[in-house]
Amino acid sequence: MKIAVDAMGGDFAPHEIVKGSIEAQKELGLEIILVGNKTQIENELKKYAVNLEKIHIHHTTEIITNDDKPVHAVRQKKDSSMVVGLNLVKDGTAEAFVSAGNTGALLAGSLFQLGRIKGIDRPAIGAPYPTQKGISLLVDAGANAEGKPRNLLEFGVMGKIYAEKVFGIENPEIGLVNIGTEEGKGTEIIKQAYELYKKTKMNFIGNVEARELSRGVADVIVCDGFVGNVVLKLTEGVAMTIMDMLKTQLKKNFVSKIGAMILMPSLRNFKKELDYTEYGGALMLGVNGAVIKAHGSSNAKAVKNAIRQAKSFVEHQVIQSIVQEIERIGDENNAD
Amino acid sequence: MKIAVDAMGGDFAPHEIVKGSIEAQKELGLEIILVGNKTQIENELKKYAVNLEKIHIHHTTEIITNDDKPVHAVRQKKDSSMVVGLNLVKDGTAEAFVSAGNTGALLAGSLFQLGRIKGIDRPAIGAPYPTQKGISLLVDAGANAEGKPRNLLEFGVMGKIYAEKVFGIENPEIGLVNIGTEEGKGTEIIKQAYELYKKTKMNFIGNVEARELSRGVADVIVCDGFVGNVVLKLTEGVAMTIMDMLKTQLKKNFVSKIGAMILMPSLRNFKKELDYTEYGGALMLGVNGAVIKAHGSSNAKAVKNAIRQAKSFVEHQVIQSIVQEIERIGDENNAD
Repeated sequence: MKIAVDAMGGDFAPHEIVKGSIEAQKELGLEIILVGNKTQIENELKKYAVNLEKIHIHHTTEIITNDDKPVHAVRQKKDSSMVVGLNLVKDGTAEAFVSAGNTGALLAGSLFQLGRIKGIDRPAIGAPYPTQKGISLLVDAGANAEGKPRNLLEFGVMGKIYAEKVFGIENPEIGLVNIGTEEGKGTEIIKQAYELYKKTKMNFIGNVEARELSRGVADVIVCDGFVGNVVLKLTEGVAMTIMDMLKTQLKKNFVSKIGAMILMPSLRNFKKELDYTEYGGALMLGVNGAVIKAHGSSNAKAVKNAIRQAKSFVEHQVIQSIVQEIERIGDENNAD
Repeated sequence: MKIAVDAMGGDFAPHEIVKGSIEAQKELGLEIILVGNKTQIENELKKYAVNLEKIHIHHTTEIITNDDKPVHAVRQKKDSSMVVGLNLVKDGTAEAFVSAGNTGALLAGSLFQLGRIKGIDRPAIGAPYPTQKGISLLVDAGANAEGKPRNLLEFGVMGKIYAEKVFGIENPEIGLVNIGTEEGKGTEIIKQAYELYKKTKMNFIGNVEARELSRGVADVIVCDGFVGNVVLKLTEGVAMTIMDMLKTQLKKNFVSKIGAMILMPSLRNFKKELDYTEYGGALMLGVNGAVIKAHGSSNAKAVKNAIRQAKSFVEHQVIQSIVQEIERIGDENNAD
């Protein structure tokens, strides 16, 4: 399997990207195409013992930054590592693309270069969401600020397939984020989406409240991209704030400093459970190709895990399965 | 000042409600009208040394529970402690009403019994939101699942007045919850609300991301009731999950147990910083009367703090100030 990696995207590009790619190549036994500035990539590759038969460079001259306007950038910067990387998937040179660059540009670029999966009206971002029980998948994590009931149904279908295939969860539970658990709560769009879900044979558990998300109330958490963005960023912010407040308390006096020292290994374990680098990246679900968005501040480990995720996405034929599931739901509804 | 308290609302009614009311009466030097079942209230009052000249009972025969449908309940249960308590404010017997009961019913009841403040299209729930810096006010915390741009402006106006008068913050910063900080982000409604804010002379700091809320990025956090509900409940859920995970880590082995014991006082301080009972209740902003919603699981301290808040609401003439501010903004716009 060949996976293209955007060597120029992310806060620590290219060094952490190249390092993570090398580790992934060794560990996962696949081929990597590093897309970006040849000289810079070569300088990074020199630092390690690299199997150059398995790690290739595809030279590009432009870079899309986080300050670039997504749609404009992917249209203008035709020779950017991101656009070229996506095209390597389109023309079949690579089977997946991984980037830690501008999320909006990656989404727009994926849509322009790869198109949508047949039957999907709006692609969405799927993000792994760490919970007390393990990992849920949040869809949509920010692609569509607004959407129709049909879109909320598609988010659940795509999330279900991914959770089933890649997380290995049998018949995953799908929950709709709402302001109460009872049927009939929420906005008109959510009420209608609820009705659409009830008609399918998926394991729809109804409305779920935000309070329950971090407990792992559902395997697939469905909401529009506005709410999904709020959920992801708020979780991150609250966790960081609590850690900061805890640190301040632990440093307050001599006794608590001793206690904190004793607890260091436990606190480190705890932090690891909350660490995004463990969970890989977000998925551009609904575009016609395997595209993984690694966290902007990805280190080598996060890059490696995102590549692992890309491999899994391809191996489990997520796209083909989404096409089938969407067709199946359409047939069910027509049979009614 | 006389404040009516719903003795029958909340998970620990009537005992914690009565206890908190007695404490508030003593500490704040005001009169309390306990609204609810006379016999039950008297049985609670007997337990304490009470100044019966300052604590009155207003007997009622019905109770609105959390399972009741809000609108239906306030229409049917005319002799419920909640409806009667609101009427005591309406007829001038009491200057404010505090309840730990059904939030939806309290909002609906406030609207029916007290009406809206002149110039306010949609009342909203204002909730104190604990941050690293202190407290922000979140408006709307759940009254309106959907709303117009004008509503989002009014939420900010009401929040500003409360933050100014009761929190004592000069020229409070108002932020609009959005999926990015740049102008032009988000839904159509939010974009239009942004434009409305820009026309006012309020201290509007623009869009704020959910990641920054718990850091205290704005004194007044404005969003629709759907997003507000998600923000409040998610914050609570994430904080609880993190505390649980931390506890599990600390109990894992002998050494970490010792460390945890040493740290107990620090951990308790830390928990206190996150404790809702310290912050009082939520406000029914925009209804024509001072109505405070204490947390459903309020203990005596939370009830006392909610009564303190009610007193402050009245003393600082929050309602009159909202009327003036709304008029001022109208005049400004007309002057353009």
